[in-house]
Amino acid sequence: MNYTIRLVIDCPDHKGIIAAVSSFIALHNGNILSADQYVGDPPEPRFFMRLEIESGGFGLGREEFAAAFAPLARQHGMNWRVSYSDRPKRMAILVSKQGHCLIDLLWRWEAGELDAEIPLVISNHDHLAKNTTAHGVAFHHQPVDGGSQREQEQQIKNLLHEHEIDLVVLARYMRILSPEFLDSYERPIINIHHSFLPAFIGANPYRQAHERGVKIIGATAHYVTAELDAGPILHQGVAHISHRDGVEDMVRIGREIERGVLAQAVRWHLEDRVLTDGVRTVIFE
Amino acid sequence: MNYTIRLVIDCPDHKGIIAAVSSFIALHNGNILSADQYVGDPPEPRFFMRLEIESGGFGLGREEFAAAFAPLARQHGMNWRVSYSDRPKRMAILVSKQGHCLIDLLWRWEAGELDAEIPLVISNHDHLAKNTTAHGVAFHHQPVDGGSQREQEQQIKNLLHEHEIDLVVLARYMRILSPEFLDSYERPIINIHHSFLPAFIGANPYRQAHERGVKIIGATAHYVTAELDAGPILHQGVAHISHRDGVEDMVRIGREIERGVLAQAVRWHLEDRVLTDGVRTVIFE
Amino acid sequence: MNYTIRLVIDCPDHKGIIAAVSSFIALHNGNILSADQYVGDPPEPRFFMRLEIESGGFGLGREEFAAAFAPLARQHGMNWRVSYSDRPKRMAILVSKQGHCLIDLLWRWEAGELDAEIPLVISNHDHLAKNTTAHGVAFHHQPVDGGSQREQEQQIKNLLHEHEIDLVVLARYMRILSPEFLDSYERPIINIHHSFLPAFIGANPYRQAHERGVKIIGATAHYVTAELDAGPILHQGVAHISHRDGVEDMVRIGREIERGVLAQAVRWHLEDRVLTDGVRTVIFE
Amino acid sequence: MNYTIRLVIDCPDHKGIIAAVSSFIALHNGNILSADQYVGDPPEPRFFMRLEIESGGFGLGREEFAAAFAPLARQHGMNWRVSYSDRPKRMAILVSKQGHCLIDLLWRWEAGELDAEIPLVISNHDHLAKNTTAHGVAFHHQPVDGGSQREQEQQIKNLLHEHEIDLVVLARYMRILSPEFLDSYERPIINIHHSFLPAFIGANPYRQAHERGVKIIGATAHYVTAELDAGPILHQGVAHISHRDGVEDMVRIGREIERGVLAQAVRWHLEDRVLTDGVRTVIFE
Repeated sequence: MNYTIRLVIDCPDHKGIIAAVSSFIALHNGNILSADQYVGDPPEPRFFMRLEIESGGFGLGREEFAAAFAPLARQHGMNWRVSYSDRPKRMAILVSKQGHCLIDLLWRWEAGELDAEIPLVISNHDHLAKNTTAHGVAFHHQPVDGGSQREQEQQIKNLLHEHEIDLVVLARYMRILSPEFLDSYERPIINIHHSFLPAFIGANPYRQAHERGVKIIGATAHYVTAELDAGPILHQGVAHISHRDGVEDMVRIGREIERGVLAQAVRWHLEDRVLTDGVRTVIFE
Repeated sequence: MNYTIRLVIDCPDHKGIIAAVSSFIALHNGNILSADQYVGDPPEPRFFMRLEIESGGFGLGREEFAAAFAPLARQHGMNWRVSYSDRPKRMAILVSKQGHCLIDLLWRWEAGELDAEIPLVISNHDHLAKNTTAHGVAFHHQPVDGGSQREQEQQIKNLLHEHEIDLVVLARYMRILSPEFLDSYERPIINIHHSFLPAFIGANPYRQAHERGVKIIGATAHYVTAELDAGPILHQGVAHISHRDGVEDMVRIGREIERGVLAQAVRWHLEDRVLTDGVRTVIFE
Repeated sequence: MNYTIRLVIDCPDHKGIIAAVSSFIALHNGNILSADQYVGDPPEPRFFMRLEIESGGFGLGREEFAAAFAPLARQHGMNWRVSYSDRPKRMAILVSKQGHCLIDLLWRWEAGELDAEIPLVISNHDHLAKNTTAHGVAFHHQPVDGGSQREQEQQIKNLLHEHEIDLVVLARYMRILSPEFLDSYERPIINIHHSFLPAFIGANPYRQAHERGVKIIGATAHYVTAELDAGPILHQGVAHISHRDGVEDMVRIGREIERGVLAQAVRWHLEDRVLTDGVRTVIFE
Repeated sequence: MNYTIRLVIDCPDHKGIIAAVSSFIALHNGNILSADQYVGDPPEPRFFMRLEIESGGFGLGREEFAAAFAPLARQHGMNWRVSYSDRPKRMAILVSKQGHCLIDLLWRWEAGELDAEIPLVISNHDHLAKNTTAHGVAFHHQPVDGGSQREQEQQIKNLLHEHEIDLVVLARYMRILSPEFLDSYERPIINIHHSFLPAFIGANPYRQAHERGVKIIGATAHYVTAELDAGPILHQGVAHISHRDGVEDMVRIGREIERGVLAQAVRWHLEDRVLTDGVRTVIFE
């Protein structure tokens, strides 16, 4: 079966990296299907690269790749990772009561737009159980009410480890994950925030937007970091509004932006199109 | 010659206002060309209305209108103003060194898109003198260097009064007008801010945007009030950017957004399409 | 229970219509919540109006309205209709195999975005039965295979009549309704066409778009008329694409445009915001 | 002085091209600043590549490059061209009476957004002479009135050759260039068409759009070919309109789209970011 190999690299910029990497691929008879590069800002620019290589004809097996590539990576000081399109990432979705982002992700997943496995959805409420299982995905209700947040988060972490999750998506999960959770959980987490950050950080952004009288509202998908709403931004979307749009209209219009922005961000992440450069992201669309 | 009469009203909302006003117009044989209404938020909703009436056949002369309309206005507690399309507003433009907004306004004005008289452009630099006079508009150089800001602002105020200016447009005027100026100058001032407010208030918004790693940049046209960048917003525009866009690219892309957003806001103001509702604006497009 | 009364009018334009209608409402103690007007193009301009009136305090009961309003309507030569927000329109959805528009409509309907009753979904395939019934909506499979199109359409028409349908939505229904059906079925039908009409009329618009090398694709919601893809347009949406987007990518991107454009058009129709002016539509947003 | 070298390639796709080209650059001590690749559609996919190389340290002089690169190019069957950022392209602009695109291009050029030399503007009218010379650009009035179109086009061609023009921009030039001119003139010509092609080909697209009742209007920048409005599309832009926008409003809104779309297309062309793939374009943004 034919699949593609994705090689993602970043390292200090200097001459000859593209030549070195592409020659390495050519040496092993690999066909490069797509290649993207980007060089960051001075004074110490970093080099970012993403390659898609056809599996057919490529001479390095999965178990051989690391050993063969390591000397080159060491020589150029590379961070690198390789992934294989026939082993999609395993994704968990955390939700609360609002289902628009969850349902949209599940629908796109069924339609083949999201290349992932989704072993489970976790929620602090049980409202979306039926919507989840209707798509053949397991739903885990992990309320906070019956215990401490610490315990709830420990149970969530257990579930994530047990199911070997590669990516956690907060699809309007309305609790703030504790610093302890974030410190100890080592995989990427994508959140959708319902404002065009950094405007309206924190609670009730649509109300804040209404009170300020803005003419555009938006949503932001970002990686979660310890600092609230301050992680690297993957994608943002906006819509024009008018004086006729009250807070409820903004909520309705916002749902549309949120689900589109989150789905696009998740899609890019799943296809290894996102690299981080400090608080900025490099997106190889 | 045929022209249109624009009647703009706001008052506490209650039954029968539309009937009262439109019957008043009908009584005087006026033909309503367009009518817009909006009712604000509870608990004390305000009613906003804009009418365009054809001058042909309308029985009330300019000098008669106020006396005829006053009783109705008093009865409903209205703020109201009337303007006549054959007497366009007189607009002054303040600029510094960057000319993109100025040139765009002047070009649109020549193309007939902005229904105004523009008796003068005022600048704290002399860079844009030639660009201004090429359009047949007087250019006044009012530097701050040779004196205090207070003196400079006094001279600007004198010019605005002398030329009977109805609207001041800050087309990337890079000085902050003093509270004394703003307190004492009673006509509307529109500013273009180069971020999608309230994100990136203050200086160097594009640098701030780059450092935060946002994926969308924007610009905001707002009325100037004593609090910096906090006045009622007339219009906002945005553009998507990518990691490839450095600060200079943002500046270039931003120029395009700024000039478009400012021109649209000015256009709406000149046509009496903007009413303020506290810090919010009602725009009857 | 409080609800709103929507009055929609069109007639030849002349002086005093707004005064007449708003005075009629005031006479019966009605509170106008929103009012929109539009006057069409010369030489014989038509007047279009939409009012929302609060039921509370309004002195005309449902059964009394027509008799009370008829003389005014006759005098001004009005087409008019009145609807009541507590009696939402009854909508049927026709689909084939692709579910994105159907699922989006049903999801929005459950979220309260679409003010309608949806007694049934009809399809020439059975693929979407489960998706439909999961939302508590009856699914009717009406294949063409076992008989003639004429018979199938007769059965569809029977279902529409039986369920007293006010609006038919073709949510990617891939069969062209026969002229006989369209001639004899008297209620509005909204279709979503997957191109920005009038470009790429007919089959396979995304393939046509790819072959032409366009940089923007779109979708169009329109009322169905006897002439294919030529009915009045309610709404259009677009997305930028690049050379990297093949036909499959366009199909994916297009799904997003289609569902958003169709939902918006249906929403406007359900709220009586759409009036037709020949092949053009007046949309009171 | 430091500049960049742009190498643009297309050839049949096969393994090892990136390695071959990047190794060639590395061999001559070149630093690749940016690299873009694209592989076209099966069954006979073509490979497209654009490199920017820093001049500093690069071991191949301008006069040496062709000889050194030719064997590689021959081996892979490449079309290729190289350009140097310190030798910007020479661009001529053709206009008629409407100045918005011309003025916008000249303004951007002065602001440093367009990396070109503009030795002359040619027009069949004299309306825009002053606007052109104000920017220090020569204006040539070449009316058709006093002679045949053939003679006028011959004079235009003479001017283009005399000034060693690399790119001709039709900035709302309202005459259709004859097949004879297009056959014999070998350099690229970019036109701005005031509709979102392929909708509304031919004359008066805004009137056509109004009559059809569309809700979106647009503009298209394309290379001129013998078949009217059918050349490869570089860029398209759109704007939403409403029933309130008559033909004149569309013309006004359209001016804004047209100037933006044309400027972006010209900018990409000047920076060698556009490759053609039959009637499609590959744009390396």
